[in-house]
Amino acid sequence: MSDVRGRSVTITEIARAAGVSVPTVSRVVNGRGDVAAATRERVEALLREHGYRPPPRARSTRAGLLDLVFNDLDSPWAVEILRGVEDVAHAAGAGTVVSAVHRTSDSARQWLSNLQARGGDGVILVTSDLDPPLTEELRQLAVPVVVVDPAGVPPYDVPTVGATNWAGGLAATEHLVELGHRRIALVGGPRGLLCSRARLDGYRAGLESAGLELDPDLVREGDFYQESGYRLGAELLALPQPPTAVFAASDQMALGVYEAVRRSGLRVPDDVSIVGFDDLALAAWASPPLTTVRQPLAEMGALAARTVLAMAAGETADNPRVELATSLVVRESTAPPRA
Amino acid sequence: MSDVRGRSVTITEIARAAGVSVPTVSRVVNGRGDVAAATRERVEALLREHGYRPPPRARSTRAGLLDLVFNDLDSPWAVEILRGVEDVAHAAGAGTVVSAVHRTSDSARQWLSNLQARGGDGVILVTSDLDPPLTEELRQLAVPVVVVDPAGVPPYDVPTVGATNWAGGLAATEHLVELGHRRIALVGGPRGLLCSRARLDGYRAGLESAGLELDPDLVREGDFYQESGYRLGAELLALPQPPTAVFAASDQMALGVYEAVRRSGLRVPDDVSIVGFDDLALAAWASPPLTTVRQPLAEMGALAARTVLAMAAGETADNPRVELATSLVVRESTAPPRA
Repeated sequence: MSDVRGRSVTITEIARAAGVSVPTVSRVVNGRGDVAAATRERVEALLREHGYRPPPRARSTRAGLLDLVFNDLDSPWAVEILRGVEDVAHAAGAGTVVSAVHRTSDSARQWLSNLQARGGDGVILVTSDLDPPLTEELRQLAVPVVVVDPAGVPPYDVPTVGATNWAGGLAATEHLVELGHRRIALVGGPRGLLCSRARLDGYRAGLESAGLELDPDLVREGDFYQESGYRLGAELLALPQPPTAVFAASDQMALGVYEAVRRSGLRVPDDVSIVGFDDLALAAWASPPLTTVRQPLAEMGALAARTVLAMAAGETADNPRVELATSLVVRESTAPPRA
Repeated sequence: MSDVRGRSVTITEIARAAGVSVPTVSRVVNGRGDVAAATRERVEALLREHGYRPPPRARSTRAGLLDLVFNDLDSPWAVEILRGVEDVAHAAGAGTVVSAVHRTSDSARQWLSNLQARGGDGVILVTSDLDPPLTEELRQLAVPVVVVDPAGVPPYDVPTVGATNWAGGLAATEHLVELGHRRIALVGGPRGLLCSRARLDGYRAGLESAGLELDPDLVREGDFYQESGYRLGAELLALPQPPTAVFAASDQMALGVYEAVRRSGLRVPDDVSIVGFDDLALAAWASPPLTTVRQPLAEMGALAARTVLAMAAGETADNPRVELATSLVVRESTAPPRA
């Protein structure tokens, strides 16, 4: 029997040590039910004792299924992540099963039971806020899980893929400062989400390095959707001293601010400069095209898919916490303030 | 043995007639491989002879997989259809496997081989233009297929779910005529697609019933994407006699026309009225909000999913050609022409 610190032990060696056939060990490794309980226990003990790890891609000989789970499918945002996941999964011969759990336990439970019934080789949760009991059930299934754009800080053993939200908030604010703006408002995302807090802190840091103080009147909390951008934009424009620039923490909220500006009889960027966040396709289609912070959503999806496929093949994630770089895309919605 | 014209024959009766066990007949019905060839042939002959049809939902006792196949995942359009499909599939305990075949045979072939390897209970093809050989391979798999928004007229035995594109083109044009417009341009979709031809014919019919003649100078062919709307919109505005209104055959092209109008120093709707087609979420987010023809994409996806699940359960589609109604949504991008 080999030393685990040297090369890794093989199924043949485990079978010999357990006094069973190689196919029996293989059945235990693959979690199949047709092995007597006593035999299974003996084999599992040996596998643990010798630190057995399945060879890479041992599980990908059959066509796999990756589960991609969103809260809702109501945003162009979802399709960008899906595009990256599907691309990697398709090439690897795996299917991408898309589900929406609508932030309800019932729907999440239904998804979990569907997953249990049909099997699945890996799960990608997007902006997850699964209930703790459901998270525990998912863990029991022993399916590899990766979280994209984590809502909070997940348990240490779940790899996450995010974007550099703080750096993005900083870059958006610095861009507006450099154009000469001093009254810069923030239409932020829900404070409960990690990404919103990081964007807010990047905004604050951008103001501070320019020697500007954060004016609480200019900081509003939206929900990432267009309607809240419109409402909060209108509130900001109605202030006695309105801002000359607005950083909206999502492209959809930025479009809401566009409409508030238009309804006030003002123009973007002549009267108000606007910066968004995400760089969805619709940012380039806005009129004028939107200056925004690019979040590489398709790349985040692709990396999550590669990570979960590697985990399904028995590898461990290289780095459990990855943030891909955001970058400022300057288009036509920003200009110096009126003199 | 019962008469097929009376009640339908049961598996028990088939088993008795074939001289085999009920589980054996069940294995044949469910297409499993562990039945001797001679037995399988005898049982299949009896099933055919007596017109056996599995009871509804006989196959849905295991969790199913619905394949949803797009050409590309590069449009907010895809996510609307996906939302409808996922909703129905999720509730039925089935997973929705999303694939993009990028209009290449290689990618479509890879998808087919993935499907063969993992199995699937039904396929929804969106705006399908699969190669004839691939269509034939798909038919060999004997998986139920439904086409959403057919690119052309598919073989008579494949059910389709579309929208009333002709009526939508008519409604858009009539709305502009009623506002007083006489020079109404069309930025159409690719002529090769059935839906584009129907929208063009609806536009023509709307002009004709107002006693207006179609001016070929005012009819342009785009590709449904924003860039073509921008380019063709700019061409139209540069005409010696520019149109006062534009009907764009997709919301994305309509946004391109917005940008062409803005760059000409003009305003929507003061100088140019614009009507789109689709009613994607971004239509309501445009500034000004876009008047458009609503295509019920989520409902189309939901109906396709219900149809394919029913077919998987052994039912036949009620109606092989369904067109769901479009409707005009009047927002703020249309107004009477300047006097």
